[in-house]
Amino acid sequence: MSPINFSIEKKEKEGLLRAGILTTPHGVIHTPAFAVVGTKGTVKSLSPEELLGIGTEVVLANTYHLYLEPGAESVKEHGGIGTYMNWHGPTITDSGGFQAFSLGAALGKGVSKIIGKDSAEKERDEEDIEHLRAKITEEGVEFKSYIDGSSHFFTPEKSIEIQHALGADISFAFDECTSPLAPLEYQKEALERTHRWAKRSLLYHSAQRENASRQALFGIVQGGRFKELREESARTIGNMSFDGFGIGGSFEKEDIQSVVGMVNKILPEDKPRHLLGIGEPKDLFLGIEAGIDLFDCVAPTRIARNGQLYTRSGKINILNSKFRTDMSAIDEICGCYTCRHYTRSYLSHLFHAKELFGLRLASIHNVYFIVNLVKDIRKSILEGNFVKLKNSFFEKFVF
Amino acid sequence: MSPINFSIEKKEKEGLLRAGILTTPHGVIHTPAFAVVGTKGTVKSLSPEELLGIGTEVVLANTYHLYLEPGAESVKEHGGIGTYMNWHGPTITDSGGFQAFSLGAALGKGVSKIIGKDSAEKERDEEDIEHLRAKITEEGVEFKSYIDGSSHFFTPEKSIEIQHALGADISFAFDECTSPLAPLEYQKEALERTHRWAKRSLLYHSAQRENASRQALFGIVQGGRFKELREESARTIGNMSFDGFGIGGSFEKEDIQSVVGMVNKILPEDKPRHLLGIGEPKDLFLGIEAGIDLFDCVAPTRIARNGQLYTRSGKINILNSKFRTDMSAIDEICGCYTCRHYTRSYLSHLFHAKELFGLRLASIHNVYFIVNLVKDIRKSILEGNFVKLKNSFFEKFVF
Repeated sequence: MSPINFSIEKKEKEGLLRAGILTTPHGVIHTPAFAVVGTKGTVKSLSPEELLGIGTEVVLANTYHLYLEPGAESVKEHGGIGTYMNWHGPTITDSGGFQAFSLGAALGKGVSKIIGKDSAEKERDEEDIEHLRAKITEEGVEFKSYIDGSSHFFTPEKSIEIQHALGADISFAFDECTSPLAPLEYQKEALERTHRWAKRSLLYHSAQRENASRQALFGIVQGGRFKELREESARTIGNMSFDGFGIGGSFEKEDIQSVVGMVNKILPEDKPRHLLGIGEPKDLFLGIEAGIDLFDCVAPTRIARNGQLYTRSGKINILNSKFRTDMSAIDEICGCYTCRHYTRSYLSHLFHAKELFGLRLASIHNVYFIVNLVKDIRKSILEGNFVKLKNSFFEKFVF
Repeated sequence: MSPINFSIEKKEKEGLLRAGILTTPHGVIHTPAFAVVGTKGTVKSLSPEELLGIGTEVVLANTYHLYLEPGAESVKEHGGIGTYMNWHGPTITDSGGFQAFSLGAALGKGVSKIIGKDSAEKERDEEDIEHLRAKITEEGVEFKSYIDGSSHFFTPEKSIEIQHALGADISFAFDECTSPLAPLEYQKEALERTHRWAKRSLLYHSAQRENASRQALFGIVQGGRFKELREESARTIGNMSFDGFGIGGSFEKEDIQSVVGMVNKILPEDKPRHLLGIGEPKDLFLGIEAGIDLFDCVAPTRIARNGQLYTRSGKINILNSKFRTDMSAIDEICGCYTCRHYTRSYLSHLFHAKELFGLRLASIHNVYFIVNLVKDIRKSILEGNFVKLKNSFFEKFVF
């Protein structure tokens, strides 16, 4: 029996749009929902209480990062990722595959979906590509730690073992995330390997009955930008007895709509679908329209720390000098803690003075904006107003 | 009429120890009390709600820093420092004198009471001493901005004018803070100037009736380590019609007890006394024993950001590798948010991974520790147990 339950509350007769209720051992997620990313067991600068106040229902942590620091055993000793970080709601861990490649073999090859890297990260990327290059075999992937260069080996079984120690409500099968620039031949080879790894992940997971009884496992559909590969992957992964599905890989933004919709037409309708690592406002609308139930993305917190803040008319950068004397809230119709209590002028001061509280206020606002945008979209689905909301949002928001 | 009211709730028959109630336009401060420092209009990494949760009753902001960034007018436009930073309780601003000298003329000369400077600050100190040197005349002090090197001129009148714009409940007369290494002759000359500046500050303040009706002005006793100068200063400043008093200047820690007690014997008993910039546990006990009602210090937040955390048995550094696997709270008997929800192991991970939330959890703990230590001391005074508490604290705490 699956440790999670997914019921569709409302769906379109034609099309893929849907709103559902996903029940996990640690509580309910009303889908579509945005999972806030707490990479290393903390959502950068925010407390669990702030996440709750924002309306967050689920937090996603990264297996790769937690494995390297502090190590899965330490998290397990605390009772799992939730108690470790004092977040008592639903949790997700990814498989570590994306980071093992994007910080390893694929460094500098355009796999990363990470927006707004700081210059130190960029330099590291450029210097260390060779040093960190990962080696992929049928067995798994050998990669080097970005922290100390030490060698590590992830297999599907190892990824699941780590995720069992991390103890999230939802875990993911180990996959290879290829560069969108890789040729068809390589993509095909990688995809077939990913399918074999999916099977091994599922097998290993199911054998650990106690874990499988309290942790769901999602399979990941890959296939890059190739229609036929995506279809094949959706059929293959969709036929395995996963509790839900992820759609992985980096593809150009314009592909989201077509690729994701096509995949979701093939995947079993009664199981939840997570579009991995995507979370810009436009993509949320397009993804949901294409049948996505879950999202996660570092963008809201990452760009916040660079001073980029969402408003209904697009992003602003609070470091722009015109905001120094701006007495209005970041977004006048926003109900977040930051907008209720602080002016753009104050935020601008905190950013210019490099005050830590500025990073926090900006993160609260951006996470609130995205989490509640998805909540608004959910409401519009229930009320049959999705297209109206989408049109009015797209009209005002400058992408 | 003074905008503040101070009543002594309990005092020792012999000695200077006392507990009081200081009523300000923005609420009550139960003294002795520790004012948390929000240098630039934010207590580094903490929200006003967290400060309230900690038990903070009063916040002190720095006139010098706010004058340079974002400028007093911006704070005034927000309705004053309290509403600017969303702190609705009592507030204090210092006069700017200490920073104008410690970041100006006195750079590198041992005036600074600031503990645990990071290396960037130290380098700046060493490189820029000449560049930033302040010029002192009878009229005031000319100094250069540590931000952009621009020239500024503070007079007693200017300091009060800025503090009126900042609008705190308690403001301070403009003073010269000398190096403890300066010779007697210079200290004497500076002290007499400080006394003339005190008079000018008071005159200017009183003339602005509306401000004077809602903002208290404290005079500052200086005099370095010289007994006769401190006595003279306490008599001179004590005879002026200030609403309360500050004891300023940096002196060696061992002088706190003798110098402060001597000064407080001379100052009017019915007005509050603030020991400026001092706040280590030992100094709090000694200061209170010597008749101090108010303290402020950046130490709790500053050392927290370096990983130094208070416990009942002394300070620990969370970066020490032994804490990586330590499943206990920072301080097992502490009631702060951090100790109630997180292990040393988690804190250690956050610090090693340079996660922002670590700085915040550490700051919450240290501020809670100090604010509540002073509250405990207050309670012991009311219950007649001060000496018992002091002895038991000193026995366990390794300084």
